[in-house]
Amino acid sequence: MWDRLLVDCRIATLEGTPRDPLGVIDNGAIGIADGKIVRVGKRTELAGFRARDVVALGGGWVTPGLVDCHTHLVFGGTRADEHAMRRAGASYEEIAQAGGGIASTVARTAAASDDELLEQSRRRLHALMRGGCTTIEIKSGYGLDPKSELRLLKIANTLGEDEAVRIVPTLLALHALPADSKDRRAHYVSEIVDKLIPAAAKQGIAASVDAYCDTIAFTPDEVERLFKAAAHHGLRVRLHAEQLSNQHGAALAAQYRALSADHLEHLDEAGARAMASAGTVAVLLPGAYYALQEDRKPPVALLRKHKVPIAVATDCNPGTSPLLSPTLAMNMACTLFGLTPEEALQGMTINAARALGLAHNVGSIAAGKQADLCVWRVESLAELGYWIGLPGPERRIFQGADT
Amino acid sequence: MWDRLLVDCRIATLEGTPRDPLGVIDNGAIGIADGKIVRVGKRTELAGFRARDVVALGGGWVTPGLVDCHTHLVFGGTRADEHAMRRAGASYEEIAQAGGGIASTVARTAAASDDELLEQSRRRLHALMRGGCTTIEIKSGYGLDPKSELRLLKIANTLGEDEAVRIVPTLLALHALPADSKDRRAHYVSEIVDKLIPAAAKQGIAASVDAYCDTIAFTPDEVERLFKAAAHHGLRVRLHAEQLSNQHGAALAAQYRALSADHLEHLDEAGARAMASAGTVAVLLPGAYYALQEDRKPPVALLRKHKVPIAVATDCNPGTSPLLSPTLAMNMACTLFGLTPEEALQGMTINAARALGLAHNVGSIAAGKQADLCVWRVESLAELGYWIGLPGPERRIFQGADT
Repeated sequence: MWDRLLVDCRIATLEGTPRDPLGVIDNGAIGIADGKIVRVGKRTELAGFRARDVVALGGGWVTPGLVDCHTHLVFGGTRADEHAMRRAGASYEEIAQAGGGIASTVARTAAASDDELLEQSRRRLHALMRGGCTTIEIKSGYGLDPKSELRLLKIANTLGEDEAVRIVPTLLALHALPADSKDRRAHYVSEIVDKLIPAAAKQGIAASVDAYCDTIAFTPDEVERLFKAAAHHGLRVRLHAEQLSNQHGAALAAQYRALSADHLEHLDEAGARAMASAGTVAVLLPGAYYALQEDRKPPVALLRKHKVPIAVATDCNPGTSPLLSPTLAMNMACTLFGLTPEEALQGMTINAARALGLAHNVGSIAAGKQADLCVWRVESLAELGYWIGLPGPERRIFQGADT
Repeated sequence: MWDRLLVDCRIATLEGTPRDPLGVIDNGAIGIADGKIVRVGKRTELAGFRARDVVALGGGWVTPGLVDCHTHLVFGGTRADEHAMRRAGASYEEIAQAGGGIASTVARTAAASDDELLEQSRRRLHALMRGGCTTIEIKSGYGLDPKSELRLLKIANTLGEDEAVRIVPTLLALHALPADSKDRRAHYVSEIVDKLIPAAAKQGIAASVDAYCDTIAFTPDEVERLFKAAAHHGLRVRLHAEQLSNQHGAALAAQYRALSADHLEHLDEAGARAMASAGTVAVLLPGAYYALQEDRKPPVALLRKHKVPIAVATDCNPGTSPLLSPTLAMNMACTLFGLTPEEALQGMTINAARALGLAHNVGSIAAGKQADLCVWRVESLAELGYWIGLPGPERRIFQGADT
């Protein structure tokens, strides 16, 4: 006797094949017990099973719960003022060099109490959840010193505790060089590498370690020091790479078997080839491209050619992507980067799960995985990438329960 | 004794001055009776008044309910398939010339029953309402013959009847030339001008008459025939003008004292000057610019120079702007067209009301106007243009009642 049996629906399992990338089951059914998927198939194949609760979904489309694999959700204040500055022509680099940008968020994050940060972050979390997310990655990165970074990871963990969502915390260890460390880069990197990484590993507080490799952030050598320390402590890595320039960060990430390399507007073919070999996921972040009004798009054709798995994420952050909607990230990936609607959906389900190292547990509808599901009242799933600002699924199921 | 007294809030009345364009009242209060605003001011100024229901808003920001002054909300089916075609490089004009585009929506609209159209349209209506809209214009235009256009206007009127929203129906009389009329343009225009306009006027079913003036639609001469007929029957006019090319439609619209000219990417200075003289509102539609990935922006500097009132709308339609969020339209107006957050908010409140000829009744918070209000849980109203995909107001009040 199962807990629930979902019927009267079409299912995109995301357990696809090249011919049927979404793994569609018409007139399907899903059996759920103990918060997990027990069986998925045609309604007729599941005819012999019983459940306490049989739920007819009125012909809706069922997808895996959405996975937002790249956010900076925990921060204090907003940067609505810089949004206006950018309208007046200032570039992201100019704002950063003028002491705005990340520095202003770092200050407002430090000034906020834990409760204030929780309350502000919870509103954003709820927006993403209403949009269909059941798994959300949250990076630290607005602390910039070991103690503050650990604080943000704790807040990210706390956020998930009483909400119907899976939070995956990432230690964004090298995000920006604090103003008072401008002349002591090596010292700052040593602090992070020698103190923060061991402490985070010991506390088991982050699922992986991330960094920002670009001209306005950290060099490949600095990132490599970090990656070595992470590997030494058994932590997987990820990298913000090739966003504003080509630093060959993607190849470096691949060399350290990174879960993902993210942004990638300036990725070259060698980088794509390295990522493919290492199984490193390409995480595309169209919200930042849109908000910064960039004109260089990530090389989607190269990623397809080398069969690099493509994920899509909101990059929800106060400066370069204050994006609160996962379906809008999918629409932007189609409209701005030319992804197909199928690629965009894979990008916010199975490939996003891969980018988090969680593809065994979430991201598709398969026996043994978490029963995290969305039910959409649409004619075709292409609509998830078509509508601009779709409010969210009709029904959102987390670990088997409606939320 | 009033019905309600809203307190503990900051108010953007939109009864502004050049120095204070949003007309901000800190620590304000709003008195409501019979669904209308009776008085608005400082809390202290309203201290002597009593109300049956005193509502403390927890320091939230109150704005007028949003006004979406340009939508094509009533249609059958979607065009999610063309969204994919455009990804493959086809232009809007190519899709239109290949018999796709509007023609496919016209066919699906004709094939849908009234109940089906109501149900499909209601979902979009609810999305806009949840986003904060309390007044929504809906154009006909997917019928293309007199009987079908009148049917769509009836459906638009019906939609509003049992929903907490004000629907303003517009007869989009000349939208596209039907395929079977390609060799009989003059005959088609005569049908519309001589039969549809008088019928719509007689039934009192539309608030104004609209047309699409461009190379793929109707010529200025054809539009002028329509405008003359509308004037003869006492109907105000509006125009889709200068979207894909400069047909001098804005000047033509101004000559007929149009309520608005909409799109305007190719507007020239003479057009802007004519609009300013006639009081014709410039309705900017960034959703279409975004979805079509156009590169020509409307000349915002010209509009400012000549003091043309600027409105912003979703243009919600299946082909060129499947946009379901008013705050996203505001964000796009800032991000893509360079509007300030204040201009974007004026654009979806008081100036949108002007574009509908309803500025005496909605669009700002002033005694005598409808008590249509939104309460936003934000630090600053600049956030309405800053967040990408903000879910909507915390509280939405229509004619004095929470909805």
